[in-house]
Formats: sequence, structure tokens, C-alpha cells
Amino acid sequence: MINFTVGPVQSSEVVKTVGALDVPYFRTPEFSELMLDNERRIKELAKADNSSRVVFITGSGTASMEAAVMNIFTKNDKVLVINGGSFGQRFVDICNIHEIPCDVLKLNVGQALTSDMLDVYNNKGYAGLLVNIHETSTGVHYDGKLLSDFCKKNNMLYIVDAISSFIADELNVKELGIDVMITGSQKALACPPGISLILMSSKVVEIIQNNNVKSLYFDLKDALKNAERGQTPFTPAVGTLIQINERLKEIDSKGGLEKEQEYIASLAKNFREGIKDLPLDICSESLSNAVTPVATRNCSAYDLFMILKDEYGIWICPNGGALKDKVFRVGHIGNLSMEDNKCLIDALHDLFDRGILK
Amino acid sequence: MINFTVGPVQSSEVVKTVGALDVPYFRTPEFSELMLDNERRIKELAKADNSSRVVFITGSGTASMEAAVMNIFTKNDKVLVINGGSFGQRFVDICNIHEIPCDVLKLNVGQALTSDMLDVYNNKGYAGLLVNIHETSTGVHYDGKLLSDFCKKNNMLYIVDAISSFIADELNVKELGIDVMITGSQKALACPPGISLILMSSKVVEIIQNNNVKSLYFDLKDALKNAERGQTPFTPAVGTLIQINERLKEIDSKGGLEKEQEYIASLAKNFREGIKDLPLDICSESLSNAVTPVATRNCSAYDLFMILKDEYGIWICPNGGALKDKVFRVGHIGNLSMEDNKCLIDALHDLFDRGILK
Repeated sequence: MINFTVGPVQSSEVVKTVGALDVPYFRTPEFSELMLDNERRIKELAKADNSSRVVFITGSGTASMEAAVMNIFTKNDKVLVINGGSFGQRFVDICNIHEIPCDVLKLNVGQALTSDMLDVYNNKGYAGLLVNIHETSTGVHYDGKLLSDFCKKNNMLYIVDAISSFIADELNVKELGIDVMITGSQKALACPPGISLILMSSKVVEIIQNNNVKSLYFDLKDALKNAERGQTPFTPAVGTLIQINERLKEIDSKGGLEKEQEYIASLAKNFREGIKDLPLDICSESLSNAVTPVATRNCSAYDLFMILKDEYGIWICPNGGALKDKVFRVGHIGNLSMEDNKCLIDALHDLFDRGILK
Repeated sequence: MINFTVGPVQSSEVVKTVGALDVPYFRTPEFSELMLDNERRIKELAKADNSSRVVFITGSGTASMEAAVMNIFTKNDKVLVINGGSFGQRFVDICNIHEIPCDVLKLNVGQALTSDMLDVYNNKGYAGLLVNIHETSTGVHYDGKLLSDFCKKNNMLYIVDAISSFIADELNVKELGIDVMITGSQKALACPPGISLILMSSKVVEIIQNNNVKSLYFDLKDALKNAERGQTPFTPAVGTLIQINERLKEIDSKGGLEKEQEYIASLAKNFREGIKDLPLDICSESLSNAVTPVATRNCSAYDLFMILKDEYGIWICPNGGALKDKVFRVGHIGNLSMEDNKCLIDALHDLFDRGILK
């Protein structure tokens, strides 16, 4: 199978080699060192200030989204959520569950965010902005600079879910004044799923230290305290954390962030050009390098997903809900080659020749 | 390194082979089937009623402990916690955080639970009992039948953290009337850490359906709904779930639960006999097959841990807190052989000969 989904994605040999080993015991100086190295390397990739901190949560990206929101905001805050799809809606749900008042800037499927839309929300006393910088469900990549300016002007915390965008798209945490950046192990980090991480500015760390969160597992105060010595409060997904370390070293040794980002962008460009002659429409006004969302015209997107899986040995990424039959997504992250791209482009052309893609 | 800790433990070849592979996409009928098979096999191993349900949480065992408590009990309930060590204390902490009134039956380190101790707590209107059936921190295995009788008599829910005991010790969920059983991937399931699971009686499922939990990630209603079709609300640790499936099939093909349990018990017995002539004291009044807690007399238990790691290539399991220098633990779960046991027993004798173990 070739995997063009948005996670789990294909891993490099070095990551899979670790997966084949026994998982070591972790309450050791050796594992602590590895974790401190993970923190240092993540901060470097995110271009974050040295005073920022990183904690690793054993859980899906959603676990870190919820942990961040419930540790930082309270009933006395008001936040603004950019909601352009199911992950924006997830932030809204989290706010509602934890009774954090929120206003919602709702976008249509595929719609880019503009400065006009944001202007309406100036001077409303928001404590923070919650945004999925790449709304993975629709493949819309928001303008990080636009949101940064808005947050600075309104003195708001800038909370960024970059789960599927980290590494794939340019993101300068320090320059943009991002206070929280969240990502997961199974996106461009190209490791198995099971770990998500939260990078926090010193400002946010201080807020967390002064809040009381009603959770043991998501108590970031405890996680921060343990992370000082490279440990976690509870047994983490040790194997995946070691794989992340190997992967971070690999990115470094292969030329660093820029090289990796260029490669992902070139895969995306190659795919987008390769399907131009097919009855398919790229349906995002602002694309991320990580994903291409593709609308079908006269056939079911979900049927294409199933046929590609069963007849061609290829996974593309189906959509759920109202978009199930209308849109599929193609990921450009993970260990993919130009030849893999060619297989998918050829398969789509074959489906066109067979009258299935129409 | 030979790993005698209580998790992560050593995995079998079949589990490590899966770890070496790319993690597949999971919103597919194929993965759903695997998950339904996991549920069926866990229920079988636990000897649970067919009407019970299993959900898999991407997170540490603590994640499932907290999820279970917060989904089942409310401020209007009162529970009894058996607290014999740091995992008992964890249940107390969870109750306190979620404002669930609790009484605590506190035990000394290594102390077994007796019927006299429990008698004091009859007819107090408890909604449930929370117990770590094997208090992993001290190696005390409580009497499941005693607690079962107590719960039945007092019409209480019987909530069992069996994280380190599942498979290693006898546990008949149906016979004992256990309402919730929790375990983790990295104990006798001998897979990498990252997944914990909650098995629930139909009675508990109904309670959860009627409660409103203030959590998105730990909303068991949502997990139960998704699990009906073999899925999870959020991207799970797919690789580990596939490893669990392979491991469950392996246990089955090698003679089933009884065979596996017998083997773990024989490893424990062999180790306990092998250290009889050393100045070490097994310090639990009621042992689990999973672990042997060992008290040192005139040397630091933590020093032994460090020397065995650095000079012998062996991990034993250190204790934290007040027991750090007094007690170490030796696990008998995971892919361990009698030869591995011999290595550890020989190493301990060598430490004795060197005058370090005294």
C-alpha cells in the first residue's frame, strides 16, 4: 500500500528500525537526556524563543488541544475561534465543554481568512485566539501573519494547532508571537500516532502555573515540572518518543527544516500539476504544502477512496460528514517519493479512462 | 539490556515485527474489524459477560483510570478507595480533582487487605469501590473475591485497575461481578506503552450514557459509540493497537490464558527461590505473579538499580518517593526466559560477593 493520507503517514527506515526494537525502561538518565534533546530540537524547528517550553502528551492531537485550552483559559476569559471545518469545530466544542466563553468566526468550506473578516472582532476583550493554522479537514492554510498582527493589536494569546502544518509549512513561532503551538507524531514528524506535543511561550507557562486545572492526566503544571528533568508524570509512549528523536536527528542530518519543507512543497506541486487534466477541482483558496483537497464533479469521492484502496493499493484520505462524497484529500507528508506520486496520478488517470472518475 | 521492570516490558518477535512496519491508514473496514476482534479477545481473556464493552484509549493507564472515574461518578456519589501505595493514592487524587466524595482505606506498605478491615465500611451508602487489584508500587495483590463479596453485599460498583495484573493473575470479571476493568498495553500484554483500555459491564455503560462528562478526549459515551463500528473518536495509536491484536492471537495460539499465566507464575517462583540465600526480603504479604517487591537491608535499592543497569545490562524497577532506597521491584511479565532470570539471580549474587549487596 502507498499511503497518501494525512496520518498515520509513511515512516523512514530509521524510524521503523526503532519500532522493531524492545522499548527500553524510561525512568533513567538516558531517557531523560533524549527527552531534553527532543524539547530542544522541537523548539529549534519551530523557531521558538529559548525561554519557551515543550511537553509531550501521550494521546492524539485532540488531547493536546483540550489540555492547552483547559489549562490556559477559564470561565472568566473570552476567546475567539477560527472555525473553517471539523478541527475548528473541535476547538469550539472544547470551549463549550469547559464553559469558556467563545465567539466563532465561521468560514465556508475551502474559504481563506481575510483581514476584513477579522476586523469585525477588534477590541472585544478576547483573552486569546484559537486557530488550526491548517484546517486539515478542508485543506485551508490560514495566513499566520494576518492572525499574528490581529493578536498583537488586541493583546491576545495566539494559540495555534499546527498538527498537520508543522514542518510542512513555514511557521516562525517567535516572529509571529505564537504562544502555543501543538503538533502530533503522525504528521510531518512521520512517526506512529500516539504522541502529541505542546510548545508554550514563557507567558503561557506562567498563566498555567497560576491556574488550577480539573484534570490529573492533563495537568500541564505537573507535565512542565516533570519535563524539567526530561520526564513525564505517567508512562508515556516511550517507543514513539525515541522514534521522534531519531526522526528529528534525521531531518537535521539531511539538511534541516528548509530542505524538508522544500521537498514536501515539491511533492505537493508535482501532484497538483499532475491532475490538472482530470475532472477534479482543488477546492481550497489557500493551500498548505501538507495536503491537497480535491473535489470530484460527477462521482463520489468516497467511492474513489475505496476503489484506490482495494484495486490499486493506494490510500488517499477520505472526508467525513457532509463532504464524504464530494471531497477527498491527498497528503504530501511522510516518507513519499516522486514515484509514489506518479503511481497515484497514473491511478487517477486510469480511473478516468475506465469512466469511474468523471 | 534485559528488562525486568514493570513496563515497558520486552515484546515477542511478532509484536516487534509489526513495529517495524509502516502504520496503515485506519478509517477503513479492515482496521474496524481488527478493533472489534481486539474487543472480543479482551472480553474473552477477562472472562467478561458478552454484554460488556471495551474501549481503547490512546494514553497511559492513568488516562483510563481518570476517564473511568469521571464518566461513572459525580459529586452526588460517594466512593471507597483502597489505598495501599502510589496507585491507590492516584485514585484518591482523581476523586479529589473531580470533587467525588471518597473515603480511603489506607494500608501500610506491603500489607494485605483483610475482611476485618473492610467490615468497618459496610452500609455506608457507597456508589462504588475503586481498587488497584495489584498495587504495582508495592507489589501487593488484593483478594478479588473478598472485595467482590463486599461490593455485592453493599450493592456497589466494583471498579478494578488491573493494569499490571491482567493476564498475570487470575481474574474472572463475570464471576467477581467486576464492573470496570482497566489495563495497559505495556504490562502483560507486552506491547509498547501508549494504549490503555477500559472494559465495562452493561450496567456501567448505561450509567455512562446517562452522565455528562466535562471532557472531549475522555468522553466515554463518544468512545463507546465509535467502538460499535470498531473505530475511535480521534486518531489512536494505530500501530500499538495492531500489535495488541497480534499479541492476543499469539497468546491464543500458544495455549491461551492459563498457559500464559502459568508461565508468568513459574518465572516469579523461580526468581523468588533464586534469591532466598541473599540478604533481601520479599516485602509483600500478598504477592502478584507480575512482580516481586524486594527490600534491601544494608544497601540502597536505588544504587542496585543503577549498578545493574550500568554494569550488568539489566533493568530492575526502582521505586520512587520514600521507598526509593529501600525497595526495588522485579517484573515477571513480558518476553522473559528462565535464562534471563538466571542472569539477574547471578548478577545479584555477584553483587553480594562484591560486598555491594549487603
